Amino acid sequence: MQTIHQELNVRFRYDVHFTEGVFDVENNLLAEIIERSEDPFPRRVLTVIDEGLLDHYPMLLKSILRYLNERPNLESAGPPITIPGGEAAKNDPTASNKIQNAIYENGVCRHSYVLAVGGGSVLDVAGYAAATAHRGIRLVRVPTTVLSQNDSAVGVKNGINAFGTKNFLGTFTPPYAVINDGSFLVTLEDRDWRAGIAEAVKVALIKDPVFFRKLEETAQNLAPPVRSREAMEALIYRCARLHLEHISQAGDPFEMGSSRPLDFGHWAAHQLEQLTGFELRHGEAVAIGIVLDSTYSYLRGMLDERDWLRILHLLTSLGFDLFVPELEQHLNEPDHPKSIFQGLEAFREHLGGELTIMLLEGIGKGVEVHDADMNVYREAVAKLRAARVVAENV
Amino acid sequence: MQTIHQELNVRFRYDVHFTEGVFDVENNLLAEIIERSEDPFPRRVLTVIDEGLLDHYPMLLKSILRYLNERPNLESAGPPITIPGGEAAKNDPTASNKIQNAIYENGVCRHSYVLAVGGGSVLDVAGYAAATAHRGIRLVRVPTTVLSQNDSAVGVKNGINAFGTKNFLGTFTPPYAVINDGSFLVTLEDRDWRAGIAEAVKVALIKDPVFFRKLEETAQNLAPPVRSREAMEALIYRCARLHLEHISQAGDPFEMGSSRPLDFGHWAAHQLEQLTGFELRHGEAVAIGIVLDSTYSYLRGMLDERDWLRILHLLTSLGFDLFVPELEQHLNEPDHPKSIFQGLEAFREHLGGELTIMLLEGIGKGVEVHDADMNVYREAVAKLRAARVVAENV
Repeated sequence: MQTIHQELNVRFRYDVHFTEGVFDVENNLLAEIIERSEDPFPRRVLTVIDEGLLDHYPMLLKSILRYLNERPNLESAGPPITIPGGEAAKNDPTASNKIQNAIYENGVCRHSYVLAVGGGSVLDVAGYAAATAHRGIRLVRVPTTVLSQNDSAVGVKNGINAFGTKNFLGTFTPPYAVINDGSFLVTLEDRDWRAGIAEAVKVALIKDPVFFRKLEETAQNLAPPVRSREAMEALIYRCARLHLEHISQAGDPFEMGSSRPLDFGHWAAHQLEQLTGFELRHGEAVAIGIVLDSTYSYLRGMLDERDWLRILHLLTSLGFDLFVPELEQHLNEPDHPKSIFQGLEAFREHLGGELTIMLLEGIGKGVEVHDADMNVYREAVAKLRAARVVAENV
Repeated sequence: MQTIHQELNVRFRYDVHFTEGVFDVENNLLAEIIERSEDPFPRRVLTVIDEGLLDHYPMLLKSILRYLNERPNLESAGPPITIPGGEAAKNDPTASNKIQNAIYENGVCRHSYVLAVGGGSVLDVAGYAAATAHRGIRLVRVPTTVLSQNDSAVGVKNGINAFGTKNFLGTFTPPYAVINDGSFLVTLEDRDWRAGIAEAVKVALIKDPVFFRKLEETAQNLAPPVRSREAMEALIYRCARLHLEHISQAGDPFEMGSSRPLDFGHWAAHQLEQLTGFELRHGEAVAIGIVLDSTYSYLRGMLDERDWLRILHLLTSLGFDLFVPELEQHLNEPDHPKSIFQGLEAFREHLGGELTIMLLEGIGKGVEVHDADMNVYREAVAKLRAARVVAENV
């Protein structure tokens, strides 16, 4: 018996840029990113756009096409593809097929570009389509929501839902580049503006106590109705950087091991999204997931009461609702498909191996555990319900 | 404007093992590979098998299930999935869906295993399904043909056909492990036995003149009717090693650049497969592609006549037919979809960027060019037709 050992080191590089008015003809950033490689001109660009954007920016498609047409080295590869925004995009198997069909029809090659503009869901679908067509077409992401700018779009994942399971299909594929354009944020609904902040609270809680304090100090400015753009852009930059650092430095960018600290609060969040039929936005569900696992950490004696209350207070002052009735459904029947606890099993199954949950030992100090005490979780749910009653009566 | 630079280094390791009787209960190799990680027991294994194997090995499914059942640390994750062999598997969009459905139904997680047993096509489909489910389930490949053992199954690609285009969908995803079991080769048809040798000739021609001489010396033993297993296993080992070395050492394992030396002869091969409705086996088409680009190299004055004749002679003495009428169809209409020259465009498009063709400057000495002279190719086709006439009259 013989054995050949194979070892591959694959290096990926990409930049996350921050700009204003990415498709203004005077803004050179996008053109420079695409012109940088050594391929022959013109560079071909297939645009995929979030339908939800067009209500607020009816001229957006025209602007993008004008931008591509006015640059001598760029060329639009066929008409832009429009994809419904939000979770609908990820639930619809025809959406990624539509993009791949356009890739095929327009002869978009591996040295061409898919330019995806929109919220996290549309970027996830476009990313999956681009990653699997011709074994990978370059993807330039232009995220347009808080959540995608500070979290999902700066990372290395894509995905669509299948078999009723969130992100059942997807790949780890770093983007070619990411462009965060702050001007898109102004038209966000209050709910979406706020929802994106949840991922910043999450990453602060597990990694960065100074950032958490900053969030406490700016909560009033961040939250609706104030919605300070300055405060929000500072948040997005810092949150994106923490995510990027984690991906590059934690030693497991493609998640081959069992550890996944950035998914703090996400087992419950994913299940609550499903249980509410995606009535809850991802960020809103993450806020509840965070507070549930923080409360559980507190009840297990890992997190002191003062820190626990700070977390409750920050999320409440940002305007998050920290209780939904779905938390209590079938709480005593953990095997019931509509029990929150089914989220734990789905989480373990997606990640595989041993159950690994991130908890808190303090603000900015995450710690992983490999077990879950259902009774303590039930107590945590009761605490959240009680906290809401208090909040309502304040 | 701010920019965050991201750099990721992702390390992949896998072993290619050579064994006999991989599913014999006394053979510990497979169990050891799967038991090696640090996940909790039992390790769950979903088997995907090439239907074509079951004619020759009616007890194979039973043997695999017995193997998994007799090991205390292993467990079969649901009934094995059977996929039609050959290109049919890659053309059928339901095949990869069937595997993903089984992954879903049986709760196969990222730390479980898909065990794929069969020829290159079935391994490609199973690899694509496994790579995209849960963003990547571990794949153990057991290739059962010469072609897959010495070439496709030791590499990092998977793929299925879509939009009438070979490998339109796929990913670069290294396997968890590869097990080459020589005992599967004995039941191969002569055509399949021979076809796999083409990839060895290819890699020898571009990289290893000593290997080429070895192939010349052993051609008689290798080819049907002799079919020496010893000669074939030596060929497979050396060819697999050359492929693995290329992938790890040439600096571009995921083919982000434009260079793809291992695809010597493949632009014509892929087109001939399509044009013959996959009547030609991949290896048979590669033999023609090799001789076409060798002849073109000779006619362009890059390769001397003696070396060109050695190539013709080796492939002929291995029993390859070096001419098919499809080579001549629409030879003067390069834009006709049934012209061989459409293969050049498809090749450029799949790879992207500048057209890059590998040619020969000598035996074992590949060189890349970025242009194609249709008239010289027409002359090369005429030479191949003439060579066949000579061969038929010898």
